[in-house]
Amino acid sequence: MSSGKINVSVENIFPLIKKFLYSDHEIFLRELVSNATDATLKLKHLTSIGEAKVEYGHPTIEVKIDKENKKLHIIDQGIGMTAEEVEKYINQVAFSGAEEFLDKYKDSAKDTGIIGHFGLGFYSAFMVADKVEIITKSYKDEPAAYWTCDGSPEFTMEPADKKDRGTEIVLHIAEDSVEFLEESRIRELLQKYNKFMPIPIKFGTKQQALPKPDDAPEDYKTEYETVDNIINNPTPAWTKQPSELTAEDYKSFYHELYPMQFEEPLFNIHLNVDHPFNLTGILYFPKLAKDMQIQRDKIQLYQNQVFVTDNVEGIVPEFLTMLKGVIDSPDIPLNVSRSYLQADGNVKKISNYITRKVADKLKSLFTENREDFEAKWNDIKIVLEYGMLSEPKFYEKAGAFTLYPTVDDQYFTLDELKEKVKDTQTDKDGKLVLLYAGNKDAQHSFIDAAKAKGYEVLLLDSPLVPHLIQKLEADNEKLVFTRVDADHIDNLIKKEDTAISKLSDEEKEKLKTAIEGVVPAATYTVQLEALDSSAAPFMITQPEFMRRMKEMSQMGGGGMYGMGNFPDMYNLVVNTNSDLATNILSIEDAGHRDQMVKQALDLAKLSQNLLKGEELTDFVRRSFEMMQ
Amino acid sequence: MSSGKINVSVENIFPLIKKFLYSDHEIFLRELVSNATDATLKLKHLTSIGEAKVEYGHPTIEVKIDKENKKLHIIDQGIGMTAEEVEKYINQVAFSGAEEFLDKYKDSAKDTGIIGHFGLGFYSAFMVADKVEIITKSYKDEPAAYWTCDGSPEFTMEPADKKDRGTEIVLHIAEDSVEFLEESRIRELLQKYNKFMPIPIKFGTKQQALPKPDDAPEDYKTEYETVDNIINNPTPAWTKQPSELTAEDYKSFYHELYPMQFEEPLFNIHLNVDHPFNLTGILYFPKLAKDMQIQRDKIQLYQNQVFVTDNVEGIVPEFLTMLKGVIDSPDIPLNVSRSYLQADGNVKKISNYITRKVADKLKSLFTENREDFEAKWNDIKIVLEYGMLSEPKFYEKAGAFTLYPTVDDQYFTLDELKEKVKDTQTDKDGKLVLLYAGNKDAQHSFIDAAKAKGYEVLLLDSPLVPHLIQKLEADNEKLVFTRVDADHIDNLIKKEDTAISKLSDEEKEKLKTAIEGVVPAATYTVQLEALDSSAAPFMITQPEFMRRMKEMSQMGGGGMYGMGNFPDMYNLVVNTNSDLATNILSIEDAGHRDQMVKQALDLAKLSQNLLKGEELTDFVRRSFEMMQ
Repeated sequence: MSSGKINVSVENIFPLIKKFLYSDHEIFLRELVSNATDATLKLKHLTSIGEAKVEYGHPTIEVKIDKENKKLHIIDQGIGMTAEEVEKYINQVAFSGAEEFLDKYKDSAKDTGIIGHFGLGFYSAFMVADKVEIITKSYKDEPAAYWTCDGSPEFTMEPADKKDRGTEIVLHIAEDSVEFLEESRIRELLQKYNKFMPIPIKFGTKQQALPKPDDAPEDYKTEYETVDNIINNPTPAWTKQPSELTAEDYKSFYHELYPMQFEEPLFNIHLNVDHPFNLTGILYFPKLAKDMQIQRDKIQLYQNQVFVTDNVEGIVPEFLTMLKGVIDSPDIPLNVSRSYLQADGNVKKISNYITRKVADKLKSLFTENREDFEAKWNDIKIVLEYGMLSEPKFYEKAGAFTLYPTVDDQYFTLDELKEKVKDTQTDKDGKLVLLYAGNKDAQHSFIDAAKAKGYEVLLLDSPLVPHLIQKLEADNEKLVFTRVDADHIDNLIKKEDTAISKLSDEEKEKLKTAIEGVVPAATYTVQLEALDSSAAPFMITQPEFMRRMKEMSQMGGGGMYGMGNFPDMYNLVVNTNSDLATNILSIEDAGHRDQMVKQALDLAKLSQNLLKGEELTDFVRRSFEMMQ
Repeated sequence: MSSGKINVSVENIFPLIKKFLYSDHEIFLRELVSNATDATLKLKHLTSIGEAKVEYGHPTIEVKIDKENKKLHIIDQGIGMTAEEVEKYINQVAFSGAEEFLDKYKDSAKDTGIIGHFGLGFYSAFMVADKVEIITKSYKDEPAAYWTCDGSPEFTMEPADKKDRGTEIVLHIAEDSVEFLEESRIRELLQKYNKFMPIPIKFGTKQQALPKPDDAPEDYKTEYETVDNIINNPTPAWTKQPSELTAEDYKSFYHELYPMQFEEPLFNIHLNVDHPFNLTGILYFPKLAKDMQIQRDKIQLYQNQVFVTDNVEGIVPEFLTMLKGVIDSPDIPLNVSRSYLQADGNVKKISNYITRKVADKLKSLFTENREDFEAKWNDIKIVLEYGMLSEPKFYEKAGAFTLYPTVDDQYFTLDELKEKVKDTQTDKDGKLVLLYAGNKDAQHSFIDAAKAKGYEVLLLDSPLVPHLIQKLEADNEKLVFTRVDADHIDNLIKKEDTAISKLSDEEKEKLKTAIEGVVPAATYTVQLEALDSSAAPFMITQPEFMRRMKEMSQMGGGGMYGMGNFPDMYNLVVNTNSDLATNILSIEDAGHRDQMVKQALDLAKLSQNLLKGEELTDFVRRSFEMMQ
């Protein structure tokens, strides 16, 4: 029996890191600027606890292109390294100086915002450079060091004469990576990954107007000076306390995050939690646009102010991915290249926290300013309805602030609504019937009829409604929803039977036969009703159950499978007490009578938007002829 | 000056591999079965070239759960390892034996289908196991070896008494990974990753009916035997030549790939290329379903028959991601954990190849069986239209098979259509006007009017049409598309002016004033036209340009920004030669005249589906009253 240690050789692992570890070569800049940031944050911490007896000052990080010599420089004024430290941190792949620092200073360093984790980032430089130099001077009183390596992986090291504190990394950009010598490309990368990093990043210079002197002449021309161009905002809104921020600050951060977005957000939710994980962020409810722009401005995920991805699937519950904003957490477990979320229990907790926090915020928005909440309801309802259907915990809380608007723009919670209509809309079996319309225009005549009875009609027009009301019915005993055109209003909320028919049974039979001779039986079931004589003579209705199941099936995820393709079935409600019914009965001439029934059917179809194509063209032509 | 080699220690790198390299722990099984497969394929190659003087036989891979002892076994009958080889391949992280093999045997081994690449897969075992054992016997005449490691990373090694060739890996499943001791979970993973791997994989046993003997009695009861349960199909359709496969084979492979899919695919495209990269695969055009099911069955990406992902973004051009099927290529560059596509020039080439191949196949389908192609057109057109708009190379080729259906279900290519209508539909300025409808029902009266003139009317009803025709107009001089309700038909294709008005200019002025007094000016522009006296007296039209720009803006990506929210503007075309026009002029009573105009406007609105809500309810009520 022999024993030993598993061995890993740099010749084997180095090519993997260079070529296959990171999905995208552009990542190198994120990694090197992160290292420069960590070097600066470490110095900040050591000066703050008195361990480094130097002036922290106002350090910046500089990114500089030297196109002529095909070099890219990343320069920081941070902690620097002694020759010994280069040996330790650079020459050892996967030894994380950041982790070591956090370990050593434990609690005191907990909130420094140090980014490093895996000890691999530096080597990403070799994805784009065929030679890398380090010139570094520690804050300690030791000589500067110069290190260089062509990725072979042989390095050389010697003393250097750098005088000022900090580290300069010089990349000799490889032939296949010259894109990274273009100013526009580097600017784009800094904007993408480093826009909100905590140390100011200088990239080039810009012209800045000088203040106008008090004694400026009439024809004073603004003068400019050349200043460093700082590309980042080191203290983005989400790193501040809500109490420090005004409504205006939140809005302007929204536009900072999405410079191409011109709409204002409806409201925002500031996330801030320490335990059991660290997470900050700001989520915005946008006005949902109809076009596809919505897809572009996604929620962005950061780790310690470094942009990671705008794919937050898994971290943010699905129904909230329609929101915009930013989430920052050092605790979201990502793989080595930070390109992929690890399956992990923490992730579910984060998602649950976000759900709860959003529900709480909605509740307080509703309570504090109901009028404003109502005004925004139609813009946010789809998100909320989706949440109610997909997240049981959200559903539990949402009852308190979910609104049901009426066709007259009044807004009720479900409890308020029940209270309001319980006397009028309880039917003879004790069921409370909530009437709704899906479209005010299309169902206008039915809404009219319901309102004439003193009933409330809700306007529920979002695509998830069939699923939502199905769920609400299941959870609320003796509560039913029915669309206002599901039957004649007297049948939708059945009170005691007092209807008296003008027609005898024999006459009814005759009428029914006459009508069924004209109306296509595959589509319409003729249903005679003794209604008020002023009610519409012919009316087309569609039973609630079938229609809802079809809609649910078409939406996917519910209803009866395959029902989406069933043909539509309608009832033709004929009012036997109408004058028209009497008229039809009295016509002897079959041709004339059929024409009468056909015209009445056409009018009923018109009311339900069912008269189309050739039938409609004929109807219009006939009507024009009658006018001439 | 000093020099040295960058160093990597196993203590640093091992935890990263165990915890952060792979995004998902379940990957370990994919990796270990891949290793077992490689071991078998290597033996196959060595016996085939005569280097291994042993019988290859019919090796299988076995996966076995020992729940009681919390162990999972993966056993192959492949090449095996000597103690020396274990030392070399196992004890050295990131040394890829597969790469070494391919290097050594170069051309002869090129098509062996060997999977390994990075030399890291074996260590993924430590993501789920707290101890791993290897018992292995080489095909060479050397003693078997036993290796074990608790991930510390210390290992021990000693001789073993395994007699039969091959390698057995034993995982002692860790407390937090006991899910991998469940049969259902392992079955699920094998189904997901290993369903089409090239060596038979045995997992458990099943009952199989014995053949009925010839002399079976009347009351013969089927007898069963217990056989190995092979979970994979080692030779999936895409690994075969198209000439070996029937239409039925392609269909049944479709259902093998998507067991929950009941619809048949419309047709398939077999991809097969060796140069400049290796790629095989089969893409299917599905019947696009209305519900969301479509999203679930996505194109699957394999590497050497190992499932990698069903996210093929980047590899398959976006417009083809609506297709289904499988793509297999060893040349698609993925990162170490194979979870993320590398940005790489090859990827663009692969995407271009797929585009070209799909275009070629569509061309040949069209040429070989036009009738069938026409029958499928409405199911495939969205994919093709999207391709024409998003991939210039596809657009170039698509002209040859893109169809333009008429409202009477005839199908023309653009060239055929031009030829067919050039005599009738060229206007007085030499422009060829192609008429189209977006909806046969909604635009019925306009289609009727156009057909009465002998014109062809296309039915272009997919949402991308506004963008597509915009592009076609830009690329075809003197060709314009106009929707059939954009104006009166005589104005859409203007011939010589021969219209004679019945009305004098004075009467026209009077008529116009009367109508404008009733019709809301913000929505309708009154346009008097001397049309045929039998044409509709009132007609509402919507100019092509505005409508198209609005539609493009609403769809996103084109048109004029923000136009989507513009109010709709219409023309009210009044036929001055109609009897109704004369009637209206002759009415002295202003109230009666206004009523007449209002009714005519209502009828025109009905034809364009613009009479809605209260207006429609009133219209229907009025019409019922007139009948009674």
